[in-house]
Amino acid sequence: MDSLTHSEITALLLALGVLLASARLLGELARRFHLPAVLGEILAGILWGPTVFGALAPAGRTFLFPSHGGGALALDGLTTLAITLFLLVAGMEVDLSTVWRQGKSAVSVGVAGIVVPFALGFAASWYLPEIMGMEAGASPLIFALFMATALSISALPVIAKTLMDLNLYRSDLGMLLIAAAVLNDLVGWIIFAVILGMLGTAAITLSIGQTIGLTLGFTVVMLTLGRGLINRALPWIQAHSSWPGGVLGFALALTLMAAAFTEWIGVHAIFGSFLAGVALGDSQHLREKTRAVIDQFVSFIFAPLFFASIGLKVDFIANFDALLVGVVLLIATLGKVFGCSLAGRLSGMDRRESWAVGFGMNARGAMEIILGLLALSNGLIGERLFVALVFMALATSLLSGPLLQRLLHLKKPRRFTDFITTRSFVNPTAAVTREDAITELSYAAAQAAGLDADAVARAVLKREELMATGLGMGVAAPHARLPGLQAPVIAAGLSHFGIDFDAPDACPAQLIFLILTPVHDDGAQLEILADIAASLKARELREKLLQVNGLTEFLALVKSGQPH
Amino acid sequence: MDSLTHSEITALLLALGVLLASARLLGELARRFHLPAVLGEILAGILWGPTVFGALAPAGRTFLFPSHGGGALALDGLTTLAITLFLLVAGMEVDLSTVWRQGKSAVSVGVAGIVVPFALGFAASWYLPEIMGMEAGASPLIFALFMATALSISALPVIAKTLMDLNLYRSDLGMLLIAAAVLNDLVGWIIFAVILGMLGTAAITLSIGQTIGLTLGFTVVMLTLGRGLINRALPWIQAHSSWPGGVLGFALALTLMAAAFTEWIGVHAIFGSFLAGVALGDSQHLREKTRAVIDQFVSFIFAPLFFASIGLKVDFIANFDALLVGVVLLIATLGKVFGCSLAGRLSGMDRRESWAVGFGMNARGAMEIILGLLALSNGLIGERLFVALVFMALATSLLSGPLLQRLLHLKKPRRFTDFITTRSFVNPTAAVTREDAITELSYAAAQAAGLDADAVARAVLKREELMATGLGMGVAAPHARLPGLQAPVIAAGLSHFGIDFDAPDACPAQLIFLILTPVHDDGAQLEILADIAASLKARELREKLLQVNGLTEFLALVKSGQPH
Repeated sequence: MDSLTHSEITALLLALGVLLASARLLGELARRFHLPAVLGEILAGILWGPTVFGALAPAGRTFLFPSHGGGALALDGLTTLAITLFLLVAGMEVDLSTVWRQGKSAVSVGVAGIVVPFALGFAASWYLPEIMGMEAGASPLIFALFMATALSISALPVIAKTLMDLNLYRSDLGMLLIAAAVLNDLVGWIIFAVILGMLGTAAITLSIGQTIGLTLGFTVVMLTLGRGLINRALPWIQAHSSWPGGVLGFALALTLMAAAFTEWIGVHAIFGSFLAGVALGDSQHLREKTRAVIDQFVSFIFAPLFFASIGLKVDFIANFDALLVGVVLLIATLGKVFGCSLAGRLSGMDRRESWAVGFGMNARGAMEIILGLLALSNGLIGERLFVALVFMALATSLLSGPLLQRLLHLKKPRRFTDFITTRSFVNPTAAVTREDAITELSYAAAQAAGLDADAVARAVLKREELMATGLGMGVAAPHARLPGLQAPVIAAGLSHFGIDFDAPDACPAQLIFLILTPVHDDGAQLEILADIAASLKARELREKLLQVNGLTEFLALVKSGQPH
Repeated sequence: MDSLTHSEITALLLALGVLLASARLLGELARRFHLPAVLGEILAGILWGPTVFGALAPAGRTFLFPSHGGGALALDGLTTLAITLFLLVAGMEVDLSTVWRQGKSAVSVGVAGIVVPFALGFAASWYLPEIMGMEAGASPLIFALFMATALSISALPVIAKTLMDLNLYRSDLGMLLIAAAVLNDLVGWIIFAVILGMLGTAAITLSIGQTIGLTLGFTVVMLTLGRGLINRALPWIQAHSSWPGGVLGFALALTLMAAAFTEWIGVHAIFGSFLAGVALGDSQHLREKTRAVIDQFVSFIFAPLFFASIGLKVDFIANFDALLVGVVLLIATLGKVFGCSLAGRLSGMDRRESWAVGFGMNARGAMEIILGLLALSNGLIGERLFVALVFMALATSLLSGPLLQRLLHLKKPRRFTDFITTRSFVNPTAAVTREDAITELSYAAAQAAGLDADAVARAVLKREELMATGLGMGVAAPHARLPGLQAPVIAAGLSHFGIDFDAPDACPAQLIFLILTPVHDDGAQLEILADIAASLKARELREKLLQVNGLTEFLALVKSGQPH
């Protein structure tokens, strides 16, 4: 029986460990700068791949990430599994009913968002194949079809994330964008699956007609009969098996088998797992907790490993072709933005909103990269075009958030934890009276922000006299607006005995937040107060917060307790 | 670059899908008969392996589970990863502080539970190697050392599960068993790691002394310095990264790297991941939610896949040697039970309790099987002895629960959901008054149990007159003890409008459980009442329960809401 050698196992585990660690690290760094995590994850792979680590230490790279033999095959199997599971999660996010609820305008934006870029992409690739980066020897028809699809796909996860970041997810515009993206995703993947089928790489020999028939048939069966059966099976499984193991096992086994089926008919495993995800995610019987277990393990373990593995395969510097990147980016953006904006305008939106729809839908994200990778590994495109597609996907995703924000004049919601520093964290406060507490915290805040401590204390006490600031639940938030302040400053005090802040529930305050905001910033104070109240709603969390040793633990607890 | 073919990917995904589905299914079946899930999981592998599927359809087996080529290597990599993660979870369950809290008696039981079976196993294997199943050409010393270790290891997860099932986990006896098993596990694995090191299979060339030094050094560093650093790092990571991705990524990356290190020095990857798990699990900063995500994904996806893969490797019928199984089982049980019972007796326990300690510690479970598999793949033992070890592990695990139960005269706690049938589930009840509701539910219960409905209603109403049975929170539990009843019967009624059952909180009852218990069964009624109160504590759950369509959905909801 063939098995991995000790040396291959050592290299495989180490490779997975360093890839995961660096992908997560750079992913977090990217988020810190308000960039998508996938950017950092791919960058981690580029660092470990031929581009950097391979160029500096070729022997190290050959050991860790071998291109031949058992280690390479095992890593290939693992990344295939990783992407299959990633598409399961992506599919679970698709909510078909949203499309119908949003009605005609969603359908028209969704359809225009496919048809216009598809037509533009097809025309450009058919008439100017050299400029679009076609490799010599490729079939012009399949190449043009692929490019047309690649340019018309949207990235539902990126769009959803952007809308959540901007607090737009539940707005009319947000739901419209989501609905259009769902439609776009579904149709885009079906077209791509058909193109892959045309390549004839199936494990069995099928004619194009058979492949298309099987693909569409499988899609229809999964989204009707399969969806219904899953919805009936889930409560039965929950009732008659251990929790949550029964449902988890069912969901994963179903996904793997659907993936095996689509791989078998030649349209790649991920199409099956995506559809399985759509069918599973649609059931109201799939509990939030089960979703969370699958989502978190896949999003934070498998997805980073997969995206980092992309960087391992290609030299991103040697294959960087600025002209090609520019052309691909331009055509992709032109088709998508104009198509969607036009549809938005025709559905009766104003100019600003319809531009927002266009740039919102323009995000390509991970989906584009996955599509490009499949095309690369099937010999449909070369490394140069693959690199251009990756850059296009990242650039459109990066631009989408800031452009939406600017077009709609939005601001990111501020978190109260962003404004507490080590200096302004008083634990425990020695104060017993409200006046003492305010004075002590005013000094801490003044020191942290370089203000006049007495002036701060006076302003806060004056505000406190007007109306007490006990919020209830053992939390108080004395506050003041100060001239000359550039950004909010918060001092936090933890009191073991509790201080009376005259709260509506008469509960003495043990968590006291002194909030200073700039005079000119109208919303800051209310925003921060609302965030404090929402973040500290759970009694357990408030009790645990009183036992922390320092600010780091305090922030860690607030974060782990917050909805996300 | 080597990669898997479409046909290999199809087979790999299908193999994982059917293995997972059948392992989970048989695992659940095993639990239904109060057997450990691992038994069903291994059985699933035996069915798909050479023993059954391979004998019936050799070509099918070669396609699905190839022994050579890319598919075999990818599957090997995946099962290696699966077991590495399984040991991470096993390690996370180890709580070192328990050992010290239980003090001397835990240490003496733990030590005796290693020394006595080790000595007995070593003596038997050294003097009677043929009877103990040594292969020709093996080193007698290493063989005797391995068998001694194999016979002295305990299975912490099985012991913990057995104690939880019997409601003994938090008792003195339970904590003593856990503490002794933790010590046993830790020492046992260190000895085994050293033996593996002696085989000289490391990726680097090391002397025995170096291997032992590195192994012990790594253990000490991980459990002191590593543990401390992890405990400090966790809150920092939680505070400065996305939740829970930062901690998840850190935990997994650390585990993979520790596993790579121990594989590199020749003591197998799982030793490193086990120690990483101990160090991680020991930190109070590792949140319950993060543990749950890792635990659930690994226990319900990776573990079943791994245990099923064991059955794939060996023909369990051809290699079944009844005499060898008997000898191994006898010596294993003799050494463990006598060693631990004696230590228990010497620490001042009574005879019954010390026997309970002996049989409690005798469970070998998954740990033994993993050890056997490593020995098999390293050529230390043959397939015959491996099969005998698997049978011994399963038999000792199976016996442990029932023997403990009998020795300590225990009963399993009963769940109220076990006694509701489709016939006794009334949704919605048309009753408006308490009397009507009791009469209606009495008829449903009587029909389900074949009793005289009027007699039931009279008995319950009589009891209700003595004292109202509204429990509060919108739940009522009218009840009666009936002569001639063999087992409890419960009828459940859901009322949309609520019926006054004179509850302490004056809340009208919407969930009404009519409970009938046998006259001779003293505890049943209280047990069921307590279970109802505990299971329905969450308001959200009670609200959802009122909207179910049938009993299956009702049971599914109660189950998913219950603590486990």
